[in-house]
Amino acid sequence: MVRAPHLNIVPFVSVDHMMKLVLRIGVETFLKELAGYVEEDFRRWEVFDKTPRVAAHSAEGVIELMPTSDGQLYGFKYVNGHPKNMREGLQTVVAFGALSDAGNGYPMLLTEMTLLTALRTAATSSLAARYLAPKGARCMAIIGNGAQSEFQAMAFKALLGIDRLRLYDLDPAATAKCARNLAGQGFAIETCRSPEEAVEGAQIITTVTADKQLATILTDNMVGPGVHINAVGGDCPGKTELHPDILRRSDIFVEYPPQTRIEGEIQQLPPDYPVNELWEVIAGKREGRRDARQITLFDSVGFATEDFSALRYVRDKIAGTGLYEELDLLADPDDPRDLFGMLLRCQKAVA
Amino acid sequence: MVRAPHLNIVPFVSVDHMMKLVLRIGVETFLKELAGYVEEDFRRWEVFDKTPRVAAHSAEGVIELMPTSDGQLYGFKYVNGHPKNMREGLQTVVAFGALSDAGNGYPMLLTEMTLLTALRTAATSSLAARYLAPKGARCMAIIGNGAQSEFQAMAFKALLGIDRLRLYDLDPAATAKCARNLAGQGFAIETCRSPEEAVEGAQIITTVTADKQLATILTDNMVGPGVHINAVGGDCPGKTELHPDILRRSDIFVEYPPQTRIEGEIQQLPPDYPVNELWEVIAGKREGRRDARQITLFDSVGFATEDFSALRYVRDKIAGTGLYEELDLLADPDDPRDLFGMLLRCQKAVA
Repeated sequence: MVRAPHLNIVPFVSVDHMMKLVLRIGVETFLKELAGYVEEDFRRWEVFDKTPRVAAHSAEGVIELMPTSDGQLYGFKYVNGHPKNMREGLQTVVAFGALSDAGNGYPMLLTEMTLLTALRTAATSSLAARYLAPKGARCMAIIGNGAQSEFQAMAFKALLGIDRLRLYDLDPAATAKCARNLAGQGFAIETCRSPEEAVEGAQIITTVTADKQLATILTDNMVGPGVHINAVGGDCPGKTELHPDILRRSDIFVEYPPQTRIEGEIQQLPPDYPVNELWEVIAGKREGRRDARQITLFDSVGFATEDFSALRYVRDKIAGTGLYEELDLLADPDDPRDLFGMLLRCQKAVA
Repeated sequence: MVRAPHLNIVPFVSVDHMMKLVLRIGVETFLKELAGYVEEDFRRWEVFDKTPRVAAHSAEGVIELMPTSDGQLYGFKYVNGHPKNMREGLQTVVAFGALSDAGNGYPMLLTEMTLLTALRTAATSSLAARYLAPKGARCMAIIGNGAQSEFQAMAFKALLGIDRLRLYDLDPAATAKCARNLAGQGFAIETCRSPEEAVEGAQIITTVTADKQLATILTDNMVGPGVHINAVGGDCPGKTELHPDILRRSDIFVEYPPQTRIEGEIQQLPPDYPVNELWEVIAGKREGRRDARQITLFDSVGFATEDFSALRYVRDKIAGTGLYEELDLLADPDDPRDLFGMLLRCQKAVA
């Protein structure tokens, strides 16, 4: 564990340091180890203080805070979602977050989480697929080739051995970018001209489109028996990707039902429609995939515990790397009651 | 306004920079100007997206997130409350926060808020007193001489012209510290041996003790007619300072009733007990002090809009001062869909 020399100093992982940390560990190893932390926290799901994210909606998008705690540690993430940003050359989603000691409330890590969110989302998707996808799956369709697509591909390679990709995006430039970035990473890649073509022969279908609308990326006739659907893009009210008929044919697995019923694909279904909780599968309390013809669906929206796992992982990995700065974030006078005196001493020192 | 050269770079105000900013502006001017921002935002109270703070309770304390937005800007504060920290030489409360552009979700300021919270709490108290305290008040009792006490004194001097202080704390060392820190700041200071002695002749009584308990710092017979009570310390469930009989004799003014009924002194009263909203007084929709014999009570718990005002103020004031660092907080590749490519380019640059 990283112990800053003084409690008032908080280690900060910048975007540059996060990239270097990921590269030093290796993308696939990072994703595999991170999935291990996510799995560990899903297994002890019941200890977490859980709440749906706290959202502030504006005309153009949403800013959310996602806190959780296991009683020992507390983590939260700040994350926005502004679909129109992409057209202005900005990220749709940027994020940062902190991990704290729940025992004294002092933050112990502050970090960029734009990259880290992409990594934890992919790690969680591939972790779910390890319990839900058909055995021996090697071919995955990725519909939507934006910022999250390559991370999904790398995670499914690292955790499941996926080595054939079928890419499709409304915008061929996005597909070309995705194929270019994944060249030399050990995939056989087909770029496809339609969603129908993309799903041909795929045992796993990942949908990860970005536009905020009730879209129908997949229609019912496109999904054959035995397929695992990894539905990542439908993740806020009014943003879905699947035709509801597919949902009715699938066994649906979700992170935290109260949040997923608002934000996920299942917002299209009645509020009491039966769904399975992923943590129960991971903890061995519920069956994942039962047979080869079953359609499984991971209706992923991203939950605070996954960010908590990612914060824990980064805190453990930066020790000894030098890949962080020390931020003078917390006022911490020697006598805790003497906050004003700190100001006076600063005045003397400056004068 | 500070414009970082690139949107991915976020200005960060450390504790050291905050102290220097406060000293450069001057403590009293800072408090006066900050109270102006708080007043401005109370005046347009209705435009804010309001929610009680989001709290994670543990055995030893609480960690809270306090978000709000006026539709254009979004702000949040992270703040803890761990009463036992003081016994371990730590701050009871530490805080940091961010201000963002609600239109694209990008943070535009990250700052320490431990000092800033002490300043905004005092600014808000003195602002409320300007509307509620008896005209011409010059003498204030401060019961509880911990970290917040000097800030209260300075704000009441700056905004109301208070120049006589009567200090009391269970721990005489705290009183001595407070008196020492305020020496030479233009006050006549009496240190008192009991709360009863402290309130003698005071037109304003500030209670700002730190222990988490249902305490009775003030009993009914101690509060004479015409007094304004500035109740700052009772600010979470199970933590109060006033005997309920005082509340029943007072006209009570609060920030955001749904939060104050849980956290404030009025947690001791029935949930429908009539209270006045401070913003209505400031906006001229409701009378503040009516007469010279009325007891007024500001039941302060601290609300997210006050932090929002403080974030706005700091953002406006740091421009051109150099009193901030530039944090590489947000991953922002040239092509927003090419997050993974940013990682690949970093790899090439490092290799």
